[in-house]
Amino acid sequence: MLLTDFGLEGPYVGQMKGVLAGLAPGHPVIDLTHAVAPQDVREGAFLLEVSWRYFPPGTVFIAVVDPGVGTDRASMALRVEGRFFVGPDNGLLTGAFPSENLSFLQAVRLENPDFRLPDVSATFHGRDLFAPAGAALATGTPLEALGPPHPAPLPLTHRDPILTQGRMEGRIVHIDRFGNLVSNIRRSLWDSFTGASPERPPHIRIATWEGVGLRRTYAEVPPGEMLALFGSLGFLEIGVNGGSAADRLKVQRGAAITVAHD
Amino acid sequence: MLLTDFGLEGPYVGQMKGVLAGLAPGHPVIDLTHAVAPQDVREGAFLLEVSWRYFPPGTVFIAVVDPGVGTDRASMALRVEGRFFVGPDNGLLTGAFPSENLSFLQAVRLENPDFRLPDVSATFHGRDLFAPAGAALATGTPLEALGPPHPAPLPLTHRDPILTQGRMEGRIVHIDRFGNLVSNIRRSLWDSFTGASPERPPHIRIATWEGVGLRRTYAEVPPGEMLALFGSLGFLEIGVNGGSAADRLKVQRGAAITVAHD
Amino acid sequence: MLLTDFGLEGPYVGQMKGVLAGLAPGHPVIDLTHAVAPQDVREGAFLLEVSWRYFPPGTVFIAVVDPGVGTDRASMALRVEGRFFVGPDNGLLTGAFPSENLSFLQAVRLENPDFRLPDVSATFHGRDLFAPAGAALATGTPLEALGPPHPAPLPLTHRDPILTQGRMEGRIVHIDRFGNLVSNIRRSLWDSFTGASPERPPHIRIATWEGVGLRRTYAEVPPGEMLALFGSLGFLEIGVNGGSAADRLKVQRGAAITVAHD
Repeated sequence: MLLTDFGLEGPYVGQMKGVLAGLAPGHPVIDLTHAVAPQDVREGAFLLEVSWRYFPPGTVFIAVVDPGVGTDRASMALRVEGRFFVGPDNGLLTGAFPSENLSFLQAVRLENPDFRLPDVSATFHGRDLFAPAGAALATGTPLEALGPPHPAPLPLTHRDPILTQGRMEGRIVHIDRFGNLVSNIRRSLWDSFTGASPERPPHIRIATWEGVGLRRTYAEVPPGEMLALFGSLGFLEIGVNGGSAADRLKVQRGAAITVAHD
Repeated sequence: MLLTDFGLEGPYVGQMKGVLAGLAPGHPVIDLTHAVAPQDVREGAFLLEVSWRYFPPGTVFIAVVDPGVGTDRASMALRVEGRFFVGPDNGLLTGAFPSENLSFLQAVRLENPDFRLPDVSATFHGRDLFAPAGAALATGTPLEALGPPHPAPLPLTHRDPILTQGRMEGRIVHIDRFGNLVSNIRRSLWDSFTGASPERPPHIRIATWEGVGLRRTYAEVPPGEMLALFGSLGFLEIGVNGGSAADRLKVQRGAAITVAHD
Repeated sequence: MLLTDFGLEGPYVGQMKGVLAGLAPGHPVIDLTHAVAPQDVREGAFLLEVSWRYFPPGTVFIAVVDPGVGTDRASMALRVEGRFFVGPDNGLLTGAFPSENLSFLQAVRLENPDFRLPDVSATFHGRDLFAPAGAALATGTPLEALGPPHPAPLPLTHRDPILTQGRMEGRIVHIDRFGNLVSNIRRSLWDSFTGASPERPPHIRIATWEGVGLRRTYAEVPPGEMLALFGSLGFLEIGVNGGSAADRLKVQRGAAITVAHD
C-alpha cells in the first residue's frame, strides 16, 4: 500500500512501482492516495490512521511525506497488528499507532545496505530506500533484518484537539473532493465531551458557520444546507447536502473548529 | 473494476481497495475512473456504458456515484452478458443495460448481511456494502445469495436526445482531458436521423459554433480548427485539432447540442 | 507499464486496462503516469527516459502521446535491454534509446491485423492497437510476429541542450507536483561542461533567478530559498526548500535555462 505526497503528475510513483515489480514480483501494489498536500506530514498521518485497518494483515504500507529527506532524520520500518509500515521517522507513521504508548512497538532503523538500491539519491528515498525495504518485508524478510531497533519514533505534535472545561478546539486536517471538512475530533472524544449532558447537544463553530448537534447523513438536511456529522472516516465533518462546505466557508486545511456547550 | 466520483485526493478509493484485498485476495482491481463529476449520476452512467464491453466476461464492476447514500434508495447487483455490476439503484447502472427493456435483467437487492462490513456507515456504502458484495461475486458467490430479486431498477431520466421531425437535441455528457465535448448522440441514432438524405449532411450547432457534416479524425482539419466526429467512445464529439473545444466555446457538461437539416 | 497523456478524468486509461485484462489476464498493469501535458511528446519521452530502467526486464511499456493519431504516422514496437516498448513512431519512444545510434534497435511496425481489436478507431490507437500489441508481447508473442522490421524510427528533435564554448542552453521539460523545474541537462553533460574548471562553479540562470553551483539536497538552503541540484531523475533541477520554484518564477514547461562560466 502506497501513501505519498508525490501526486500522479510525475514519474515518482511509477518509479517506486517499477522497483517493487522488480523486487517483489507478483505482490499487488495498492494506492491509498498520492494527493497528500505537499509535505503535510499531519494530513498524511491522518489519512494513514483512518485507513490502515481496512487492509488485511500482512499488508506492507510504504508511506512517504518527507520534507526532511536528505537530512539526518531516521528511516524506519515497524510492525503493528500484523501489518508493516515503512517510511521516514517524522511523525507520519504515528498514523499507525498511538503516539503516547510506544512500549509495544517493534520498530527498526533502515540501516542494512542490502535492502536499498545500489545508488541512494539524496532526494528520493521512496524509490531508493523505502520501496526496497517494503519489497523485502512483502517477500518475507524479517523486520529485524532491516536494521537495529528504533525504540522511540518521533511523535506527531499537535495531533489531537485541545480540551478545556467546556470547550474543545480541533482543526481541519483533510478536505475531500466533495468539499467536506474533516476535523481531528474523533468519535470517542466527542462522546466523552458530550457524555455529561446528552440532552443538551453542543454548539459547533467553524469560520462563519454555527450549528447545534449532529446529523446521521447528508440527506437529513435540505439540499444546499450545512450540517455536522461523524462521517465514514470516524471523525467530525462539516458538509453541505449536495454542495461543498469548503467552497461555502472558504476554509482550508488547518482551520480551527470548536465544540462548546454554549 | 471501479467507477466512482470519489476522486483520488482522499482515502476513499484506497479504503475500498483495502476491503477488496482482504475479501478477494489475488483478484486484480482496475480503475475505470474516479473523476466522475461529484454526484453526476448521468456522467457516471455514460462512462460505464461506453466502457464495460472492453472488459472481459467475469469482470465485476463496482460503480458508486451516490448522492442518495443513507436514504432509502436500494442497493443492487446485477448480471449482464457475463459481467456483474454492483452499486446504488439510482440510474447509474443503467449504463450497463438499455433502460427500456428490463425483462432479461437478473438483479438483486443487497440485503444479505453476510456480504457487508460489520459496521455499515450511513455515508460510505462503497466501502462498507458495495466492495464486500463485489468481492463476494468475484470469488464465486452466486448473485442470488446476495439478496432478493430486484426486478425493476430505476431508469436514468433524460438519457437520450430529443428527436423531432427535422431536428435532434442532445447534450454534452462528458468533457475529456483534451477538451473534447462528448455528447449523448450515438452513431446509430445519427445514422437513422441522417439516413434519409446522406447527400445532404446535417448542420451541427453548439454554443457559438456551427459545422456541417463529420470528419474521421482530428488531423483532417488544420491545427486550431474545430470539427465534429464520432470519436472512440462511439458518440458525437466536438473537438479542436491540437486544442480544447471546451476552452474555445466555454462550454460545460450539460450544454445543448443540436443536429438539424438546416 | 502505461505512460499516456490521457489523464485519469475519462474512461480512456480504464478501457485500455479492460483490453489488457481480457488479452493478458494475470499480467499486472502499472501506471507510470497519465499526466503528460496533452500532446507533449517531448515531456512523455523525457518521463519514459528517466523511468524505464527502474522496471524489471520483461516489462512491456505501452506509451501513448499521439497528436498524429489517424494520420499515416507509423505504429511500432521495439526491444531494448530485455524490455519491450509499444507506441506511435513520433519520437516518444526515443526515451528508451539514444536517438543517434539506431543500429542495435530491434523494431517492427504494427501491421499484423491479428494483434489489434476487430474495429480500430481513427482516434484511439492506445486501446485498439497498442494495448493488444502490448498484451501479445506480455504473453510471449515474438516481436517479429507483430509486423515487418521498422529500422529507422523518427528522432525526437531538439532533445538535448545547445552547447557553445562557454555556455549551455537547455530547457525545462517537466515540472513536478512540488513545483521543481526539471531541465534536459543531464549529469554527464554538466560534468563534461564544468570538468575543465571544477574550482569555478558555473552560473545558472532561469527567468529572474541566478545561482552559482549545486546543492545536494533541498535542506541545504534555508526554508524558502531557491537552489539548483541534480535531483532524483538525474537531470538539473531548480527548486525551493519547502516551496514551489514554478510559482516563484512563474515558469512553464519549455522555459530556457542557461549554464555559463560567467
